[in-house]
Amino acid sequence: MPLSPSAKALIPFVSVENMMRLVHHIGIEQMLVELTDAIEADFRRWQCFDKTSRVASHSREGVIELMPTSDGEIYGFKYVNGHPKNMADGLQTVTAFGLLASVSNGYPVLLTEMTLLTALRTAATSAMAARHLAPKGTRVMAMIGNGAQAEFQALAMKAVIGIEEVRLYDIDPRATEKTAANLSGSGLTVAPCKSAQTAIEGAGIITTCTADKQYATILTDNMVGAGVHINAIGGDCPGKTELHRDILLRADTFVEYPPQTRIEGEIQQMDPDYPVTELWKVILGEAEGRRDARQITLFDSVGFAIEDFSALRYVRGKLEGSSFYQEIDIIADPDDPRDLFGMLQRARS
Amino acid sequence: MPLSPSAKALIPFVSVENMMRLVHHIGIEQMLVELTDAIEADFRRWQCFDKTSRVASHSREGVIELMPTSDGEIYGFKYVNGHPKNMADGLQTVTAFGLLASVSNGYPVLLTEMTLLTALRTAATSAMAARHLAPKGTRVMAMIGNGAQAEFQALAMKAVIGIEEVRLYDIDPRATEKTAANLSGSGLTVAPCKSAQTAIEGAGIITTCTADKQYATILTDNMVGAGVHINAIGGDCPGKTELHRDILLRADTFVEYPPQTRIEGEIQQMDPDYPVTELWKVILGEAEGRRDARQITLFDSVGFAIEDFSALRYVRGKLEGSSFYQEIDIIADPDDPRDLFGMLQRARS
Repeated sequence: MPLSPSAKALIPFVSVENMMRLVHHIGIEQMLVELTDAIEADFRRWQCFDKTSRVASHSREGVIELMPTSDGEIYGFKYVNGHPKNMADGLQTVTAFGLLASVSNGYPVLLTEMTLLTALRTAATSAMAARHLAPKGTRVMAMIGNGAQAEFQALAMKAVIGIEEVRLYDIDPRATEKTAANLSGSGLTVAPCKSAQTAIEGAGIITTCTADKQYATILTDNMVGAGVHINAIGGDCPGKTELHRDILLRADTFVEYPPQTRIEGEIQQMDPDYPVTELWKVILGEAEGRRDARQITLFDSVGFAIEDFSALRYVRGKLEGSSFYQEIDIIADPDDPRDLFGMLQRARS
Repeated sequence: MPLSPSAKALIPFVSVENMMRLVHHIGIEQMLVELTDAIEADFRRWQCFDKTSRVASHSREGVIELMPTSDGEIYGFKYVNGHPKNMADGLQTVTAFGLLASVSNGYPVLLTEMTLLTALRTAATSAMAARHLAPKGTRVMAMIGNGAQAEFQALAMKAVIGIEEVRLYDIDPRATEKTAANLSGSGLTVAPCKSAQTAIEGAGIITTCTADKQYATILTDNMVGAGVHINAIGGDCPGKTELHRDILLRADTFVEYPPQTRIEGEIQQMDPDYPVTELWKVILGEAEGRRDARQITLFDSVGFAIEDFSALRYVRGKLEGSSFYQEIDIIADPDDPRDLFGMLQRARS
């Protein structure tokens, strides 16, 4: 009896190596633009999705989360961890993988690395929000926190919004050096800065992306001038925030999925009924986005399952006929579906 | 720059083929005995676990579930679907895969098929419950529902409890034929029966394992005599039950995790405060199990994440130094953990 699995038993798996090949095949900036559009297309049909807050398992060292969603035809979830102390051990703070499955039969149709893909989709989501909220004509972004996400954020804002200059600050100057080196040759003007205050000078978009798992104050109220858009992506779990609450009180706050953001985002500092606007409503024109040139807009981003779903669907669409995946045998497929035991028994011979 | 991933980027993956090889290497009955002990060991430390009801995404056709848990050192979850209509399409009703990760850094340490492993752990869990609840000296089990789980249930009860005869009934006689054929040569006396009533004659354990996603009445009150142990494993999601409620009223009901069982198990027919006993307390001697020879005991089993965790840990323990896995590159591992972008950039060349 041959042990080789049938076609139904095989699902495409995109390894880290293949994801890197896929990104370079498409081109990073092109992929960021396409991902931004893919995510926006799913935000436009927000109400089709089965939405739930992520399922988080917190420990002293970090968090492991499962982020499921479904549009009724395709089900997706992401496994993702967040361990700020990993960096000191030479490990990634965030690693992830994801899966798509058919809702009608429950069979997986894609398994893929998502550490790289999460960095790309997070940057694309930021760019999508900025497209609707940032002051028009902004050409300068401040990037506070120059870790693993920084270059992706900068390139997405360049490709989608037309940012021309990125001003970098990190408490660790080596992180800023790394980011500046990686962005040389990107076409962006890169300005390493010695303080957050200096970095935000002249910036129409301020992106904060730091990793400490604690209440931090990366920005204080007196640092933030009128008219800016704040893209706050580092405050993304309970007990982890980046902005002083006085900034929130001067800003209009836009969020992904309020039940999750109220627990994990910057607004965990505020009352449970603190007014927020759902980003999907702005995109659909059902709610007001940027009102005027002096308004401070805040995208209090924590990352939501639909963004991963969009990224997974996007990758799946790129695979057919390509060499960017291998097949793995993860689904048992007996000839007679009731005869799982018979399949096992026949494998002995 | 080499594209080959570093050791940190690789995690062991057990395919369906390798799981079958592992099962035959250990021996099915031996593995069922060892799994029963592994699950019981974790039930004994029930209070160490981070417990949550599974996260279910229901559709008209079925359900897709994520079942996470953690003991503080290791995190595990299972992806599992349940689609009763799949069988008609030549697909498995239930498929599954699972993962273990380190709580301290969030890195996965094992990815494995779990369709076969779920059948094995479900049978082992049934045997564990029967070891504590079934009437002493029982040698006969009735098996109502002869689908993919039936043989595993029969062999676990043989290996762990000493069952010598299994009496089979299914509404589809071909399912019974399949199960009888698979169990020939197992050492069990196999009696195919023409009705559920006939099947349960003389049985000390009645196992019900049918797949319809609806309220069904596989057993009615007048069929169940004093002293039996009912192992009800088919009623496992909202709207899906197998037993008439009058049976429940005559029985003492034992469950895995009450918040989940009250939604998914046979007791979804009862009031929210219907009295149940948690199985782990019986195992620890903190609650009474079987009281006397006339008592009807009911294990209202829906399957709980800790059982999968035990099975995953068991498999992981068998892998070291073995050939029962391959390594897959699912974790991005840049030399400098903050330099994810640099890793991507260098892969281009």
